[in-house]
Amino acid sequence: MIYLDNAATTRPDDGCFEQAKQFISDKYYNPSALYAEGYNLHLLIKNARAQLLSCIADESFELIFTSCGTEADNHALFCGGRRGNVVTTYGEHSAVFAAANELKQRGLEVRFAPLNSDGSVNVQKLLSLVDNKTSLVSVIHVNNETGAVNDINAIAEAVKAINRNALFHSDGVQAFGKIPFRLSKNIDLYSISAHKIGGMKGTGALIKRKSLVLKPFIYGGGQENGMRSGTENVFGIKMFELAAKKRYASLKDNYAYVRSLNDMMKGALDRELFSVISPENGSPYILTVSAHGVRGETILHEADDHGLIVGTGSACSSNDKKRYSRVILACGVAEGDADGILRLSFSPENSTEEIAAAAGILNKVVKNRREIMS
Amino acid sequence: MIYLDNAATTRPDDGCFEQAKQFISDKYYNPSALYAEGYNLHLLIKNARAQLLSCIADESFELIFTSCGTEADNHALFCGGRRGNVVTTYGEHSAVFAAANELKQRGLEVRFAPLNSDGSVNVQKLLSLVDNKTSLVSVIHVNNETGAVNDINAIAEAVKAINRNALFHSDGVQAFGKIPFRLSKNIDLYSISAHKIGGMKGTGALIKRKSLVLKPFIYGGGQENGMRSGTENVFGIKMFELAAKKRYASLKDNYAYVRSLNDMMKGALDRELFSVISPENGSPYILTVSAHGVRGETILHEADDHGLIVGTGSACSSNDKKRYSRVILACGVAEGDADGILRLSFSPENSTEEIAAAAGILNKVVKNRREIMS
Repeated sequence: MIYLDNAATTRPDDGCFEQAKQFISDKYYNPSALYAEGYNLHLLIKNARAQLLSCIADESFELIFTSCGTEADNHALFCGGRRGNVVTTYGEHSAVFAAANELKQRGLEVRFAPLNSDGSVNVQKLLSLVDNKTSLVSVIHVNNETGAVNDINAIAEAVKAINRNALFHSDGVQAFGKIPFRLSKNIDLYSISAHKIGGMKGTGALIKRKSLVLKPFIYGGGQENGMRSGTENVFGIKMFELAAKKRYASLKDNYAYVRSLNDMMKGALDRELFSVISPENGSPYILTVSAHGVRGETILHEADDHGLIVGTGSACSSNDKKRYSRVILACGVAEGDADGILRLSFSPENSTEEIAAAAGILNKVVKNRREIMS
Repeated sequence: MIYLDNAATTRPDDGCFEQAKQFISDKYYNPSALYAEGYNLHLLIKNARAQLLSCIADESFELIFTSCGTEADNHALFCGGRRGNVVTTYGEHSAVFAAANELKQRGLEVRFAPLNSDGSVNVQKLLSLVDNKTSLVSVIHVNNETGAVNDINAIAEAVKAINRNALFHSDGVQAFGKIPFRLSKNIDLYSISAHKIGGMKGTGALIKRKSLVLKPFIYGGGQENGMRSGTENVFGIKMFELAAKKRYASLKDNYAYVRSLNDMMKGALDRELFSVISPENGSPYILTVSAHGVRGETILHEADDHGLIVGTGSACSSNDKKRYSRVILACGVAEGDADGILRLSFSPENSTEEIAAAAGILNKVVKNRREIMS
């Protein structure tokens, strides 16, 4: 089985699991407990927090473990966007987009900036929506459907120049552990997730500027310095730390290698059958293409029968049962092409042999479909 | 090491882990994905949902997987208590108590009912707080600090007789998988947690009456039928299902066995040194005692040095740095006794030999302390 849906979720890393499984079988204590075995886990979480933070930020930031990227996004939106207006984009992951729409339901004014054709936000139009009543701006770092990279440090700086009190949040789920990047002082909140980089589903984090006073989203026993209550998921947190350390230890090599896989795939796909939606300068981890006139879902199922797993866009959007991706339409892709969208997303674990075989399967499946249809 | 802090968290069950670990190493797909491997996990989650529900409720209920009991409690409080007043008790776990206090901050009227000396709620006084403006009543099922059992089916019925539109929620985290009980039609919402019964930290659920329209607490990709977005924690969910099935397959035998452990402990503790706080008719899984005049924390650390792990109350309360337990004081326990509180909490995995050894250690530690102090 060739797995090219790594933007939806990755296989938990075997080596990390070998190291972390002791937190299931042996060190299973409650980290809030006062005895040594509990307190040791408290220290372990503290260390994991510092290790994860150091991958991407300096000591003016802190990290709150959450149950997933979606929770981190919701924390940022619901606790950051509390008055005036909230500015975001049509290119957001559902975790931000749906939360923004809920803020609108609750009476806030929510403004959505349009996208460029590659899925990046139109920065000029975004900035025109920011004013002195803006409480929060949220812009996705790497678009999860096209791989377009928004220059969030520059955007945040421009936002602060208009309104220095506006908070700036970014969903970094498809960037963390993949793209060389460090948080600038203009970023207030940044969401990350473990299961996109070899960690476990059920673990994420919200990184926040230390000086920012933010309300908790989940209340209770006061874990995570009062910012996120609930018994800490020690195993998930340890997996997250180990997976991130592994990814960051070879970040540049992985980036170059995945770039080569991406280029190889682009070169091997028959351009009579597929057009490329993803930008040239986007994240190499995501390659979105359109097979004109053949439904993406049909290709996905036939490819699956041939031992190749690919996506048709965000797995998180499959629950809304809409035929076309909201983000792909916002890029200006025509409905005929939006129908045939495939998202190929890579991992440093993919081999060049897999890419060659995958391209062969996709070319064959679409060619056959075309012949049947004509 | 003798582990008697099972109300804080339990050791994940080895047999369940053997069965569930394939969802880390092999079946790691995104359950929202459209290919067969993803869809199969979607079906697996659907089945786990039904299996868990069947342990405790009929088909008029449904189950929403959450990241923990605390999130389930927050979902119930913040989405159930939306107008008028909210009635709860001084015996709630922090997940309900802190959420209720936050509701108060947000302008709702929140009314707290007092406790009886065993930690159960004073039902008459609770009912006197319910009126036609009450939107939500939340009463813990098994008190996590004393083991007192509130007859929530009867309380819910009495609440509905006063105001049939008031929602009734209960935190069932210390009851699920331990106490013979099924949800009556008067219960609207019920929170449960995996890691208290041999499952994993990071998985819980909110059970709700199907006919109840409730808003989501976390918004995004629309997982859990739109009620809880975020990529599903398949491994945690499978562990939860397996652990619950195992507990419910021997619920009555476990109950009787743990009752015998509890009785044995009560008999073996030196009554010159310890008084029992827990009620006779409470959950056998929790035995709370007070060592007059010796600090619980001191005993905990010395017992730990002797290879015995016990608690001093809710681990989830250790983060608030208060000397006395809020719940224990609400039971009317004097500060001198509240200082010496120990919570001994059992699992069906504890042996009678462990109980005998633990009682010996506790008697010795407290006796020595007394001698040093006098």
